[in-house]
Amino acid sequence: MKIVLGNKAYSSWSLRPWLVLRHFGIACEEQVIPLDQPTSEADLRRASPSGRVPALLDGELTVWDSLAICEYLADKFTGKPLWPADPAARAVARSVSAEMHSGFTALRNHLPFKIKETFDPAPLLPEVQADVDRIVALWNDCRRRFGKGGPFLFGPFSIADAMYAPVVSRFRTYGVKPQGEAAAYAEAVWALPELQAWLEEARKETWRMKRYEQKA
Amino acid sequence: MKIVLGNKAYSSWSLRPWLVLRHFGIACEEQVIPLDQPTSEADLRRASPSGRVPALLDGELTVWDSLAICEYLADKFTGKPLWPADPAARAVARSVSAEMHSGFTALRNHLPFKIKETFDPAPLLPEVQADVDRIVALWNDCRRRFGKGGPFLFGPFSIADAMYAPVVSRFRTYGVKPQGEAAAYAEAVWALPELQAWLEEARKETWRMKRYEQKA
Repeated sequence: MKIVLGNKAYSSWSLRPWLVLRHFGIACEEQVIPLDQPTSEADLRRASPSGRVPALLDGELTVWDSLAICEYLADKFTGKPLWPADPAARAVARSVSAEMHSGFTALRNHLPFKIKETFDPAPLLPEVQADVDRIVALWNDCRRRFGKGGPFLFGPFSIADAMYAPVVSRFRTYGVKPQGEAAAYAEAVWALPELQAWLEEARKETWRMKRYEQKA
Repeated sequence: MKIVLGNKAYSSWSLRPWLVLRHFGIACEEQVIPLDQPTSEADLRRASPSGRVPALLDGELTVWDSLAICEYLADKFTGKPLWPADPAARAVARSVSAEMHSGFTALRNHLPFKIKETFDPAPLLPEVQADVDRIVALWNDCRRRFGKGGPFLFGPFSIADAMYAPVVSRFRTYGVKPQGEAAAYAEAVWALPELQAWLEEARKETWRMKRYEQKA
């Protein structure tokens, strides 16, 4: 298999399935397409039917979209606990993953993923604060109901944590401090060796994303 | 089980899991929360942790988000072919479903779901046309590669068709004509007795959604 990613400094959607691959020890080559470069759009169109990364190539098959790739891996590697084993926990893990996948657009637009950087905290727009509040509430709820067996949302690390890992990075970048169990949860995600490895690789990249650099 | 829906005239996300329930003959009560009314927000908060419909109640468990509900049903009713049986077809079905779930925001914003109505065709904004073009391309691609066993994207009806059913309705409402196999596909979706039953129920509703009526 080969996964096609955006560059690690900026591609929050690429981070998600990459973390799943690394955490569960699934061997996979990788190819990075730097975003926001003159050739990016053509390269993305060649790699993925949607023109977006991530995409996973498995023989003749191309699977695209972060969540679909995670489901494909869960389907293919049934012996690995990519989703929680308990059906109720799995249902809620899919609910919070889908909520991230389609939502939190204010957070995503106003606090872009820049894993290498940290800024002084600034007041949040009300719609961004509402996204933050909902995310912290759902982290605390999952930890309380399902978090007994480990430091992650459903105890051991699962796809749900991969979906929220870029949010943990954003909170750190913009100085957003979650309250309650959510604070310890964010620390546990940030401390994941796989996430730190991604960060190290992001630091070695030399591409710059012009429209992001101007905002910072 | 009980599914909580927005009203049928406007809630495209509610239509998706409802079609899956009906098509596969899964018994489920329903509760409708009319959108855009003075009490809607409080009612939605009570029904769903995300404050959004659809939500599925199964005993003590609440599952929310259209795609997570579909995955929950596929997981629970393993004897019913909610996803294609072939792993490659299933992977692509999940890819196109996820692409719909997180994307096509120009189409969704500019051509809102109004299943009861039809308007004279008007020129599309470039970003809306780009969404239309991508959707038609993916419909044709799925039909060509996987559509041998029936008139739907992967032959028989699957979750992927439920995800795109609101797009079929939008195309009809705004006079968008897809080309190629996609035209016959859209006809087959529109002719589904379940979709026509939803439309009949939408016609009987008396609630109005003020911010939509003003635009029409």
